[in-house]
Amino acid sequence: MLEPQRTVSELKALRQLTGDDNGAQRVAFTEKWVAARDFLKARLAQLPVEVHTDPAGNLWATLKGDSERELLIGGHLDSVPNGGWLDGCLNVLAGLEVLRRLNTQYSGKPPVTVRLVDWADEEGARFGRSLYGSSAASGHFDVAQMAKLHDRDGVSLADALKQVGVTLEDAPQAQAELKNAAAYLELHIEQGPVLEGMGLPLGAVLGTVGVERHTITFHGQAAHAGSTPMNVRRDAFLAAGRFGQEIYTIAERHGGVCTIGSVKTLPGIVTSVVETCEITLDQRHLNAEKLAAMWQDAQDAATRLAEEGGCTVSFGYLWNIEPILFNSDLIDACEAAILEVTPTAHRLPSGPLHDAAEVARAGIPTEMLFVQSLRGISHNKIEDTLEEHIELCVVALDKLTDRAIGWIGEERT
Amino acid sequence: MLEPQRTVSELKALRQLTGDDNGAQRVAFTEKWVAARDFLKARLAQLPVEVHTDPAGNLWATLKGDSERELLIGGHLDSVPNGGWLDGCLNVLAGLEVLRRLNTQYSGKPPVTVRLVDWADEEGARFGRSLYGSSAASGHFDVAQMAKLHDRDGVSLADALKQVGVTLEDAPQAQAELKNAAAYLELHIEQGPVLEGMGLPLGAVLGTVGVERHTITFHGQAAHAGSTPMNVRRDAFLAAGRFGQEIYTIAERHGGVCTIGSVKTLPGIVTSVVETCEITLDQRHLNAEKLAAMWQDAQDAATRLAEEGGCTVSFGYLWNIEPILFNSDLIDACEAAILEVTPTAHRLPSGPLHDAAEVARAGIPTEMLFVQSLRGISHNKIEDTLEEHIELCVVALDKLTDRAIGWIGEERT
Repeated sequence: MLEPQRTVSELKALRQLTGDDNGAQRVAFTEKWVAARDFLKARLAQLPVEVHTDPAGNLWATLKGDSERELLIGGHLDSVPNGGWLDGCLNVLAGLEVLRRLNTQYSGKPPVTVRLVDWADEEGARFGRSLYGSSAASGHFDVAQMAKLHDRDGVSLADALKQVGVTLEDAPQAQAELKNAAAYLELHIEQGPVLEGMGLPLGAVLGTVGVERHTITFHGQAAHAGSTPMNVRRDAFLAAGRFGQEIYTIAERHGGVCTIGSVKTLPGIVTSVVETCEITLDQRHLNAEKLAAMWQDAQDAATRLAEEGGCTVSFGYLWNIEPILFNSDLIDACEAAILEVTPTAHRLPSGPLHDAAEVARAGIPTEMLFVQSLRGISHNKIEDTLEEHIELCVVALDKLTDRAIGWIGEERT
Repeated sequence: MLEPQRTVSELKALRQLTGDDNGAQRVAFTEKWVAARDFLKARLAQLPVEVHTDPAGNLWATLKGDSERELLIGGHLDSVPNGGWLDGCLNVLAGLEVLRRLNTQYSGKPPVTVRLVDWADEEGARFGRSLYGSSAASGHFDVAQMAKLHDRDGVSLADALKQVGVTLEDAPQAQAELKNAAAYLELHIEQGPVLEGMGLPLGAVLGTVGVERHTITFHGQAAHAGSTPMNVRRDAFLAAGRFGQEIYTIAERHGGVCTIGSVKTLPGIVTSVVETCEITLDQRHLNAEKLAAMWQDAQDAATRLAEEGGCTVSFGYLWNIEPILFNSDLIDACEAAILEVTPTAHRLPSGPLHDAAEVARAGIPTEMLFVQSLRGISHNKIEDTLEEHIELCVVALDKLTDRAIGWIGEERT
């Protein structure tokens, strides 16, 4: 018998154990994170599950089923410093509750093997590299690059891992954990305002969006603020400011999002027209072609606006990632599960990346279930979700689990 | 007999003596500046003028006339580091040439007393306070504030002055130098593109513009670049960028200039909508009422644009100065002098401040003559003016001097 209110109680107990007045403090590989894992292990010990830590430091709890084919349910107990009480651990504790229900219903042996995974260091808050544990399992993991990572105090990732019994060089061996995986499910708070804006508690996630991240630098001419008439100025900030409006048109045209997050001006003094204005542009879309079109439109618009203002423009690459689409059967299953518990379902992409994206990249059919975030705020102590919605999402995850188990059975035949 | 080509030769000789590959190096109170003054003194020694340094360190050369009433011609030998070959010293050396002509024509005794002044530290390049010597003479000089000034190496202004024989506390006694002053003339390169744009060599200056200088801070909401739809964003940079266009409309409406020179964004990271965008706004106009209206319009526009974007706005004071108008009779005289040497005269305000502004604030009828700057560039080694224009402006200053001497005579009657 599923007890979704137990998940709420356990989330509160975990907050009490590992948070403080500034929020959650479960930064990966720290004492508070170890305490959170001990909290989880104590509860797993009451179930007939096999528990072990893989070579990357991910924690696995396996409830053996009739079939060796596995349904994975994942999340992460680690948080950012001063984080929220739900991000990451909601998924783990809701998965725990689903395991309990399956264990009771199937007397310890469900139709397929079901595994709960607590991924290590999803946030990358300390070493600046997110999705550590899941990328080790998916194979997108470069030991040499990882060996270069240090925290602010100069501690290397390798040394931090050693403290929790993990050898960095062995991390890629975690790939073995996925060899029987037939499907992966992850519940998460939305971390955005879409579901709240629509008045809906739950959403089925289409995938994680692709990202194009660049710098755009407008080059004008420094000129004295007092002696230079307006009509002869080549004002790099004027061009950048116009571009700041243009990205709203571009995003609307293609149905994605575009963000200018940082603006720097040179010489940057009160008495000079801006000679150089460098901005960052982050563009995201679930559709790879539309993402490419958005970036092309941005370049065209920046070039046109620069020319109109007597400036030139140059572009610099920062980072990009392709869109990662989830499994369409599991998206359908997720929507159906949502409709069992609430009258309306909504399909939406995920703007942030998640461990689910790494699992999907490894070729495993994947789906995420989103629950509404209040005010769309996350990575902050005021991160919150209505308790009734937390309970609802545990029920929906449970129903999605049954549908995924059924789907794995069909797939085998 | 005026020899304007001699001024060009002397400017080149001074550049040779006190400049290097990076430009002019006559920073006030340094060895190169002392060398420039020695250069001037050697030439003054060939004239029957009384030469002395006042208690602020300004250098005065007096050609006694029939009347004790004085026409002052001023400039400054000091430059910014890596400065141009004309800014400041053109005025001094052109004035020297006019003194020579007057001495010859009037056999050492012109109708009124004529004095050449080389103001000390007009640029303020080393201690961050411009118009040092002229403000001491005008009485806008706070010894206690000046005593706090230090250069980058920690040397105080007082100690730097001591090196050249000046006691800071005595500087305000320089006010005595202005007691018989009846008019003040200053020739200067325009340091802007207006005359070059009109194809004119010379302009009569209406005064120095007033300045309103403020910070404007747009306050929005930080939000995740991936999970926040465009239509719910409160993007402080969007509002600031729109305002960046609006200042062009405001400047055009009132006939002044408005400059956004510095832009800062918070949190200023690639993955977040800008929460706070702080800009600086510098506004200048020759008319005090229009300057006030420009600042009011800027506040209204910023408030409106913030509201339209779901943001708020706040304002901070940086600095302001009233417009300082030159004498209308002397402006007429300047225009007439220009028309003696070239077919077209143009009246224009000065965007930058000059020593002339301090003299005008002391209640002395003042006028400036501008000569065209190539590309409008100053405070840089590429600062330049056509040699034919340099010769032309020396002739025009000479003719303006005669007109001013005549005007002083009329005024007395």
